[in-house]
Amino acid sequence: MGAPRGPNGDTFLFNPELLKNLDWNSVRSSLNPPISNEEPGEPWLLVRPLSIMDYSKGYVQILSQLTTVGNISKADFERQFWRMQNAGGYYVTVIEDTRSNKIIGAASLITEFKIIHSCGLRARLEDVVVNNTYRGKQLGKLIVLTVSLLSKKLGCYKMSLDCKDSLIPFYKSIGYKLEPGNANSMVVRYEETTKPQDPS
Amino acid sequence: MGAPRGPNGDTFLFNPELLKNLDWNSVRSSLNPPISNEEPGEPWLLVRPLSIMDYSKGYVQILSQLTTVGNISKADFERQFWRMQNAGGYYVTVIEDTRSNKIIGAASLITEFKIIHSCGLRARLEDVVVNNTYRGKQLGKLIVLTVSLLSKKLGCYKMSLDCKDSLIPFYKSIGYKLEPGNANSMVVRYEETTKPQDPS
Repeated sequence: MGAPRGPNGDTFLFNPELLKNLDWNSVRSSLNPPISNEEPGEPWLLVRPLSIMDYSKGYVQILSQLTTVGNISKADFERQFWRMQNAGGYYVTVIEDTRSNKIIGAASLITEFKIIHSCGLRARLEDVVVNNTYRGKQLGKLIVLTVSLLSKKLGCYKMSLDCKDSLIPFYKSIGYKLEPGNANSMVVRYEETTKPQDPS
Repeated sequence: MGAPRGPNGDTFLFNPELLKNLDWNSVRSSLNPPISNEEPGEPWLLVRPLSIMDYSKGYVQILSQLTTVGNISKADFERQFWRMQNAGGYYVTVIEDTRSNKIIGAASLITEFKIIHSCGLRARLEDVVVNNTYRGKQLGKLIVLTVSLLSKKLGCYKMSLDCKDSLIPFYKSIGYKLEPGNANSMVVRYEETTKPQDPS
């Protein structure tokens, strides 16, 4: 399958058609006023898949609001972009302010092939960030609901996320639940001294 | 890259060489006696990657001890196996009882390409199960530590898992932590009425 391209020759991480006609009716009560990825509330906001051009549009910088990003060159970014596209299952979605051509929000949906659940598809939410200067526009809800509704469209049987205590009310407000007795995320961290190998 | 094959013509999900020389010294205090994937404590136990032959060796049945599996045909299993292998990043690892040629334990390491953490690789633990009749042989620790050490070998910066309250002591005993204020797993579940599309 060739890389999907936009009107400006952009190469997208996934097919932008997948973001059309998401089931916004199912989450209508979560948004006031009722915005959607196709009508994000301002004519200059654009919700779309991550593009290979987004290194120059500030995707890496906005991630640095979230966690350690490190020094990433344009070549590093592009190499990782192609790895994601070749693997499939990476639905990194961004909000662009088309006035400044800057990425101002992002969220990633990652899918995983399972044997359980009838060889089902499972979804995860990762790396959610919205530029602080755009507060009050429901853009956090908008970007998370966009990828959540995409996971539903793809036929996933569940979508999960790991989060800090302070974010629980936000995610509850858009339909995520802490399942009693089954809501723990545990972790082992390794020293970040070595570059990852190419998985093989 | 061709599919890795074993001595019996098995097709493995990933290269069995990756399971050699894992850093068992780093987790020595977790196991008594000190078994490893290469010396699992009994001569008839074999720790290896999932094989395309494992449908007939009971991999699907053992998963049914864990959660809903559904009716999965040999063709369903094989189709999903090839999707996993083509995508890469799926390190499903099993324990076989070579006396009966049955899978008696399994755990999955799934890796994810990130932009954060210097275009790092992140790891997840999924679908851990050990046959109850093999209790007392530390096989739960063995299979989880095998894939955890594999994630370290692959250069992942962290490995995480979601679990029930009752399993927290087990995972703590092998080095996993609940990070204060950042240990929540939240979920949205969808009705399992539709077959997933092929992601594109």
